[in-house]
Amino acid sequence: MNPNETQDHSVPKSHPRYESLKFRHRIIEGMKKLVVAEAGLIAHGRGECFDYILGEKTTQAAKNAIKAAVAALLLAQKPVISVNGNVAALIPEQLVILSKTVNAPLEINLFYQKEGRIKAIKEVLQKAGATEIYGVDPKKMIELNGLESNRRKVELIAQADLVMVPLEDGDRTEALKKLNKIIIAVDLNPLSRTSLWADITIVDNIVRTIPEMITTAKELKKINDSQLETIVKNFDNKKNLQTTLDLVIEYIENQKEHMFDSIEF
Amino acid sequence: MNPNETQDHSVPKSHPRYESLKFRHRIIEGMKKLVVAEAGLIAHGRGECFDYILGEKTTQAAKNAIKAAVAALLLAQKPVISVNGNVAALIPEQLVILSKTVNAPLEINLFYQKEGRIKAIKEVLQKAGATEIYGVDPKKMIELNGLESNRRKVELIAQADLVMVPLEDGDRTEALKKLNKIIIAVDLNPLSRTSLWADITIVDNIVRTIPEMITTAKELKKINDSQLETIVKNFDNKKNLQTTLDLVIEYIENQKEHMFDSIEF
Repeated sequence: MNPNETQDHSVPKSHPRYESLKFRHRIIEGMKKLVVAEAGLIAHGRGECFDYILGEKTTQAAKNAIKAAVAALLLAQKPVISVNGNVAALIPEQLVILSKTVNAPLEINLFYQKEGRIKAIKEVLQKAGATEIYGVDPKKMIELNGLESNRRKVELIAQADLVMVPLEDGDRTEALKKLNKIIIAVDLNPLSRTSLWADITIVDNIVRTIPEMITTAKELKKINDSQLETIVKNFDNKKNLQTTLDLVIEYIENQKEHMFDSIEF
Repeated sequence: MNPNETQDHSVPKSHPRYESLKFRHRIIEGMKKLVVAEAGLIAHGRGECFDYILGEKTTQAAKNAIKAAVAALLLAQKPVISVNGNVAALIPEQLVILSKTVNAPLEINLFYQKEGRIKAIKEVLQKAGATEIYGVDPKKMIELNGLESNRRKVELIAQADLVMVPLEDGDRTEALKKLNKIIIAVDLNPLSRTSLWADITIVDNIVRTIPEMITTAKELKKINDSQLETIVKNFDNKKNLQTTLDLVIEYIENQKEHMFDSIEF
């Protein structure tokens, strides 16, 4: 028995880091099943840190972005949700529910190619209830201009008017934006190029964002297009990102105040 | 050929993230050679993020801590440098040089046990020039009180008056502190329990810290013990950690000011 495998399993639910360790475990298991790239583990760690300095909760700024994002998804003609290994490993069932709720197909799109990875991700999504999965058959794919990486190969994304990119790299966000697509990003780093380039940036942990988007979608499906348009129009991404940075500063200032409270020297 | 392996290799030296990607590559390669635990990749990612919000440089606060740490190492009767997989993968040669310069033996101490990992780390250190490596032979180890994890098993650390713990977990730092040892931590998270419990916390990237410590050691070996004692006495770890948080706040405020400068919408 490999202690790396049992370590996180044995964490009791009462552990203060239980949630964080549970998702860490999913990422490590995802790597063992080819779903997650090695670099995906490092990316996950970076996310953990940014989540930490946001207080590990969905901030009001994130909620505002989620509302605008869902409204934009419901208004879009040809929306697509791009899926990578980390997202598939972390929250596949909810991702499939969101896809069905807002009528936005799932397309697998990877930065790190590896033999068998697309198949592994496809299987995870199918097991989670997905019936239509794009980005699987190379014969159906075309190449986006202005992009060097493997992520240039797309299927539905080529014709999409809106692309939701959870955990995206900056190059592709920039390329998609220059193709005049509306971009919804989910990224814990408010300063990443993806965050800065996107039209609507949700700075939040994907494992909280997706369920929150599903709840929001059920609400927003009750209102009409003109009301949805108002929500999108009133959302200011730049301002929202700056508010997010203010929240980080506030969090660190607060921590600074109390940092030694629990230490008995 | 696995694209995960080639991806980072192919990054040109001019790439703005070259340094960061080089060390990321070492960590991934370290995992493939058993040196680094899977969770070590996630920990590395967390470190990357904290490094990022400190501007990816050795701050003046870190330099002050390094000076105090080296002075304390030179004053110690039985100092030990604890080595884990990430440190061995990232900067083995410089670690060995530091160990020899300040006369502090290296002891392997791991949170995540796995068959062959100690041997793999030992080989990395030997290849880097280490002649004496402790923490390898279970028969020579005793167990520290007050600690559940695998890290309780120690050799020289049991009798050490000072332990340098680069990339340590909070439980062990606390346990070692309660055994009245002087603790030098290297940790990029200024709010981690390790950072808070340690006597001297160097909030910096280990790949910059170790070379800086070697340079500092060469300087401080020229002065006498009473002068070294003054350096240690004048160092205030709590205040230094708070200064570090101020630097984070300053960095984020500055980023906030300029975040959209490079984006052409």
